Amino acid sequence: MIGTPGTAQPADLADVRTTNLAVVLRHVRHHTPCSRADIAAATGLNKATVSSLVADLLERGLLRETGMAENRIGRPAAMLTLHGRPYAAVGIQVAADHLAAVAIDLAGERLLSWRRAFPGLAATGGRAEAAVAALAGRVAAKLTAQERRILGLTVAVPGAVTGTGGVRFAPHLGWSDLDLRPALMRTLRHPPYDVVVDNDANLAALAEHRSGPHAGTPDLVALIGGVGVSAGIVAGGRLVRGDRGLSGQVGHLQLDPSGPLCRCGRRGCLEAYAGLPALVRTALPDTEADGPITDYAPEIDRMAALAAGDATVSGALAEAGRRIGHAVSVLADLLDPRVVVLGGAFTPLAPWLLPAVEAEVKARATAPEQTGRIVVSTLDPGAVAAGGAALALDRLEAGHLPGCD
Amino acid sequence: MIGTPGTAQPADLADVRTTNLAVVLRHVRHHTPCSRADIAAATGLNKATVSSLVADLLERGLLRETGMAENRIGRPAAMLTLHGRPYAAVGIQVAADHLAAVAIDLAGERLLSWRRAFPGLAATGGRAEAAVAALAGRVAAKLTAQERRILGLTVAVPGAVTGTGGVRFAPHLGWSDLDLRPALMRTLRHPPYDVVVDNDANLAALAEHRSGPHAGTPDLVALIGGVGVSAGIVAGGRLVRGDRGLSGQVGHLQLDPSGPLCRCGRRGCLEAYAGLPALVRTALPDTEADGPITDYAPEIDRMAALAAGDATVSGALAEAGRRIGHAVSVLADLLDPRVVVLGGAFTPLAPWLLPAVEAEVKARATAPEQTGRIVVSTLDPGAVAAGGAALALDRLEAGHLPGCD
Repeated sequence: MIGTPGTAQPADLADVRTTNLAVVLRHVRHHTPCSRADIAAATGLNKATVSSLVADLLERGLLRETGMAENRIGRPAAMLTLHGRPYAAVGIQVAADHLAAVAIDLAGERLLSWRRAFPGLAATGGRAEAAVAALAGRVAAKLTAQERRILGLTVAVPGAVTGTGGVRFAPHLGWSDLDLRPALMRTLRHPPYDVVVDNDANLAALAEHRSGPHAGTPDLVALIGGVGVSAGIVAGGRLVRGDRGLSGQVGHLQLDPSGPLCRCGRRGCLEAYAGLPALVRTALPDTEADGPITDYAPEIDRMAALAAGDATVSGALAEAGRRIGHAVSVLADLLDPRVVVLGGAFTPLAPWLLPAVEAEVKARATAPEQTGRIVVSTLDPGAVAAGGAALALDRLEAGHLPGCD
Repeated sequence: MIGTPGTAQPADLADVRTTNLAVVLRHVRHHTPCSRADIAAATGLNKATVSSLVADLLERGLLRETGMAENRIGRPAAMLTLHGRPYAAVGIQVAADHLAAVAIDLAGERLLSWRRAFPGLAATGGRAEAAVAALAGRVAAKLTAQERRILGLTVAVPGAVTGTGGVRFAPHLGWSDLDLRPALMRTLRHPPYDVVVDNDANLAALAEHRSGPHAGTPDLVALIGGVGVSAGIVAGGRLVRGDRGLSGQVGHLQLDPSGPLCRCGRRGCLEAYAGLPALVRTALPDTEADGPITDYAPEIDRMAALAAGDATVSGALAEAGRRIGHAVSVLADLLDPRVVVLGGAFTPLAPWLLPAVEAEVKARATAPEQTGRIVVSTLDPGAVAAGGAALALDRLEAGHLPGCD
């Protein structure tokens, strides 16, 4: 078989071997444990080729043998599984009010999950980079002490990221045109693993697409609450990044030109109703007197704790839910996703947001059954960082294999 | 090489030959004329395989030899080109006020381009199907009289289309849950060619992506004016269809909740400002007295003719342009396309719409250079029908080859 539809050039032989190594690795991930004969039967590769590929993956420490199969006809076969020990992938989420770090092994099992308060807007570019790099360094030291080798680090940023890992703008961090990846590479002293910077909503969408309850859904939107609001879009099974990586900017979708003033200078943007500063201002009007908020986690907890009995809080959340529903109906009309997943800060507040979201979407539908399901993320708060770590595994499965030791 | 990233199953041998036939056909399309040796060099297939594949394509009448190459070192080689004569692909656009039919040959050259007035909303489902089938039948008869064989017919509908060619709803035609493809198959007496029903904005986007001045742009949105307004979205080089084929519904994007009443019952939708009924109502307020409009083409011509000197017309178009600009900024924020192409009824009115569109998009950008270019389609009014015809060629290049005569 030469090439694939849309390409007229066949791959060269080195590419073929890389592709086949990745096919075998992917097969073992999804069908662990399995034998060399299972792999040959499922992939159509001949047994000699499979043996050679498996030997390579064993040598790289990506697979290991787990003993012999039982209940099989014929000669007992050595069973293969992913090698959980020696590798790790790391994701770090930079949010406006905190940093989160997650490390996973090859099978996606979580090795560590840390959270640190982080004065995003208050920190200048240099100090913010240093804080991210310091956290990455501590994670790396911990994993290295466990004799793990790091496959890759992905940093998730709430903003527009260029293909070379620069941050074009991240208003909630006060960043613009920041060469984050090169800066991290310098601070981490040019580590032997890949460092990648990506958008946080994209990574949230990838995390849902990879390991949420609706994993594998080809058309899925993750709508992520926080200081800002943004969307990660999966269409036809692939992330929609846009021409310059700027897709999913839903925070300044103007819902009502006569609505409340937004930080951007216009009125009635989604963030002016459903961003955390707006939510806290309307739900907890006494809070501002205590001075500026640097970490929203306690305020989210307070809203969740009060909502059942406090009409101001529940009313503010229902109003935010209606506005989120309006935005979901726009996303649904334009993209027709099967599932819209509410995540980030929307998750702990979902019991009070979701009924209003659903009612508004239903009221706005211009045709029956026009909108897919709206669900609340069941992934934990480290999901974006974990999605970043998973991206390093995706690169592995796409053929970016580590060398032999 | 086995499989492609994302699939663990290699293709079987019949698939390999089909794929390779399509690769050769695609190479000749893009590098005509070329020799068998050129094809072998470019695709990596060996010369014996290329000779066998070319023989097959010559026998099917898809390629022909055009004589010997000059200015070549070594033995003169027979040059191959697409066989323009015996095949044709047909596209029919069903609009609210007209039907358009286009037929093209293998090289994409237009064989015929027809337009008929069509009382879309006034026709009941059965009569509308009959009108579409009658036009298809006349096109087929004309092509058959030229001794051409029809490869496929694509029907473009302004509405939501299911995977099996049913129309879920097409409000501007008054259609809902209409099994259009089966009905057309019956009326056309189960023709030997494929009949496919698709959304008109999707086909417009494919036409721009295939043959517009920005052909090949991976992230492109076609915003199509008419009685309704809809968008065709190409992201990462692929059409975004959504889960149920309902993507691109931008007509009822609510721009201002206190705006003019829309046909859908809400206020301030894009269509209530920039759909043809709204445009005619504001630009040509005397027109309604003449009775209901069944074909908007004369009114579009009148607006274009009057706009230079008539402040009511130019003011109405500028206001519509501002609202279109608002919608474009939403599309840009969510999808980050490199190019937004204004097409359909927006094309002839573009000189008066575009300045307002651009000013509004610029005013709404929340970051510098946030929005891709906004351009006016240079494709002719038959472009959607031609896009439908081109889809039949795409199916050919994807390996759906006609049999030998």
